[in-house]
Amino acid sequence: MVPGVLLVSQNAFAEAVGHSDPIAPALLALFVVLLAAKLGDELFERLSLPAVLGELIAGIVLGNLVLVNPAWSFLEPLRVTPIRENWALILDSLARFGVIILLFEVGLESTVKGMMKVGKSALLVAVLGVIAPFLLGFAVSWIFVKELPPALAAAVPGFSLNYVHLFMGAVLCATSVGITARVFKDLGKLQTKEAQIILGAAVIDDVLGLIILAVVSGIVSAAEMGRALDIGSILRLIGVAVLFLVGSLTVGAFLVPRIMGQLAKLRTGGMMIVSALLFCFGMAYLANAVGLAPIVGAFAAGLLLEEVHFRKFREDVEIEHLIKPISAFLVPIFFVLMGIQVRLEMFAQLSVLGVATGLTIAAIVGKQVCGLGVLERGVDRLSVGIGMIPRGEVGLIFAGAGRLLRVIDDATFSAAVIMVIATTLITPPVLKMVLARREGMNRVIG
Amino acid sequence: MVPGVLLVSQNAFAEAVGHSDPIAPALLALFVVLLAAKLGDELFERLSLPAVLGELIAGIVLGNLVLVNPAWSFLEPLRVTPIRENWALILDSLARFGVIILLFEVGLESTVKGMMKVGKSALLVAVLGVIAPFLLGFAVSWIFVKELPPALAAAVPGFSLNYVHLFMGAVLCATSVGITARVFKDLGKLQTKEAQIILGAAVIDDVLGLIILAVVSGIVSAAEMGRALDIGSILRLIGVAVLFLVGSLTVGAFLVPRIMGQLAKLRTGGMMIVSALLFCFGMAYLANAVGLAPIVGAFAAGLLLEEVHFRKFREDVEIEHLIKPISAFLVPIFFVLMGIQVRLEMFAQLSVLGVATGLTIAAIVGKQVCGLGVLERGVDRLSVGIGMIPRGEVGLIFAGAGRLLRVIDDATFSAAVIMVIATTLITPPVLKMVLARREGMNRVIG
Repeated sequence: MVPGVLLVSQNAFAEAVGHSDPIAPALLALFVVLLAAKLGDELFERLSLPAVLGELIAGIVLGNLVLVNPAWSFLEPLRVTPIRENWALILDSLARFGVIILLFEVGLESTVKGMMKVGKSALLVAVLGVIAPFLLGFAVSWIFVKELPPALAAAVPGFSLNYVHLFMGAVLCATSVGITARVFKDLGKLQTKEAQIILGAAVIDDVLGLIILAVVSGIVSAAEMGRALDIGSILRLIGVAVLFLVGSLTVGAFLVPRIMGQLAKLRTGGMMIVSALLFCFGMAYLANAVGLAPIVGAFAAGLLLEEVHFRKFREDVEIEHLIKPISAFLVPIFFVLMGIQVRLEMFAQLSVLGVATGLTIAAIVGKQVCGLGVLERGVDRLSVGIGMIPRGEVGLIFAGAGRLLRVIDDATFSAAVIMVIATTLITPPVLKMVLARREGMNRVIG
Repeated sequence: MVPGVLLVSQNAFAEAVGHSDPIAPALLALFVVLLAAKLGDELFERLSLPAVLGELIAGIVLGNLVLVNPAWSFLEPLRVTPIRENWALILDSLARFGVIILLFEVGLESTVKGMMKVGKSALLVAVLGVIAPFLLGFAVSWIFVKELPPALAAAVPGFSLNYVHLFMGAVLCATSVGITARVFKDLGKLQTKEAQIILGAAVIDDVLGLIILAVVSGIVSAAEMGRALDIGSILRLIGVAVLFLVGSLTVGAFLVPRIMGQLAKLRTGGMMIVSALLFCFGMAYLANAVGLAPIVGAFAAGLLLEEVHFRKFREDVEIEHLIKPISAFLVPIFFVLMGIQVRLEMFAQLSVLGVATGLTIAAIVGKQVCGLGVLERGVDRLSVGIGMIPRGEVGLIFAGAGRLLRVIDDATFSAAVIMVIATTLITPPVLKMVLARREGMNRVIG
């Protein structure tokens, strides 16, 4: 073998001759991630633990292999922000599609009517579940954070520490419903009042979180500039978001049956699933465009679509059955990637760990107030409180916004990340336990 | 509204406050592409034309809107190589997954046994279908290409033009089976001998194309360096590819039932579809690793998996039904994106158009020799010849390799692109027509 024989580099030659597909590294990563997901699923299923926790742990193991041997760093590209490598970007996108599909699927199993029934409780649960963590977050920040981030202190000398606490409060507000929805779904309990209240509250939560983030960001950036708060644009942002939710649910209830009736007349194959996906992606995009999380749009799309709309399609299957293979493919990628992004070495930083513990306790305790918002009798308030715990990616996005505004420094950001990890990992086993206990009690009473 | 009130840029603020998801632009693009695909499908279905052609044309319309109004350039990021924008990369990847899933699905509908039955014909068809286009491509290049690409002429003064012709011959060799498979699939004719022979030939074709490209690239780069041809590494490349195909089909036939039997014992939900996808992605990756196209691996995976392997799974569905929603989602993306990448303005370049016409005729006529390779009686030789016409992305990859080695200049590359477009667009309607004629004849005879 004479490697120098080639004019072009070995790599380029191999690529040219072997016509290597740019998708190849993503195929390999996908293989590893899906395999890990299913192994995690299976192991935890056998241990009677939630499958989703198995996927998270599988991800944590994969991602932290690098701590065992620095050479096993192949998954590092998935753990940096922003993602730079193409294959990592592809996997990250599939994961994002995964959580969108998950919430769409969960929405499909619920109806607008069912949500309306628990509407008042959901609203109350959401409001309480935003106020309490906000105050607790403020308090934790007040206890632990004694000085401004250096960059901010240098830029705006008179900046008040209270603004930092305000932001930390905001970080704790919004529930991330993916984890909880998955646990209820795995247990076949999405139809219970507890699940419906949590889902409704999580949607309202996202709107409230948006409002709080908008207001706090507005206050902070105005303070940084020494100018007045731009209330007009904040109000407009909020108005559009509320309009989107109310509008899509009312206009949608009118339009969707008609549109689906038209689509059912088309003769092309695969029309049913593609129509559903078009609706899901379209609503997710619109939600994002008005400043809400895409998953809120996907959930609303699922709520609006009901089995009856598909009756007239030529295909003789239920839409839930068509979405299932897609979610079986994409959803585990989301949870494994969440696990991969956990950096276990962060837990070793003592300075961060104090704030992290405080934030985590505030996050958990804060949401337990939610149970008080439940108006219906016979609904398990504890499950509602537990189900609202996970903060997930929304909390991270909020913390990221704070970092952008320079009120949150790297150490506090790390603490917020640990809080997200902890609330994410705690919820599945505790929720499963609480639901099982509840079932046992019902059996005794019945 | 006072836009200057914010310290961070408006954009960063909007992103921070509205927690905009990085997936949002991809969601929008996906919405547009899927909608266009289904509209194209429906229109062509009603015109009794192949649905896949509808998707290609829908893509051509979308991509060339920019010719109508330069402001409508939103899809341009999908038309540049290499792709730079994240959303375009995501769509491109979904398209690549799409064609992998398509070939896997096609493989699922065929069996190793069925392929072996037509093995001799497939081999003969493949060999003839590689030799004839190679010679014709050489001839066309000899007629039209009268001087070396300037860059190469400057670098290697004594370089022979014959090497350029050699490369152009290689570009015409490999069939791209996606289009043909889709037409047979849409017509429910994948089980016919014609389809089986074409599929088998296309797989062998890819191996032959790999060999030719390896040899020609080796000769050309050796000539460019003025050194001897590195036969050793070329032989190794070929050996590995052949070993992969033969090995996977023989070892796979033994191992797959056992592995699937073990997997069937697992209790986790979604095991059946995820097992199938793992196998598909794994084989696609391996095929790519040995220098073959990933779709060849996906097809082999589909061939090896048979319905009987899934009997023991808890889930009471057929694997074809599980893969269908995924392919209904991903496959149209591939065809619309192929259409989007067609630059209609290229057809206006007269200098390129001559070579392009010559190449296209050589590509079409060259594959008609394939019919002679069919040994079975009662098999329609014309459909086999037509079905082998499309060159698709493999031809482009070969031409790209030539450009990398500097033997193919931009004009000739454009001509190769037009050849790929033309063979892709011609095949579906002609193949459908030929198959219908054949059916009519059978009815008369019967």
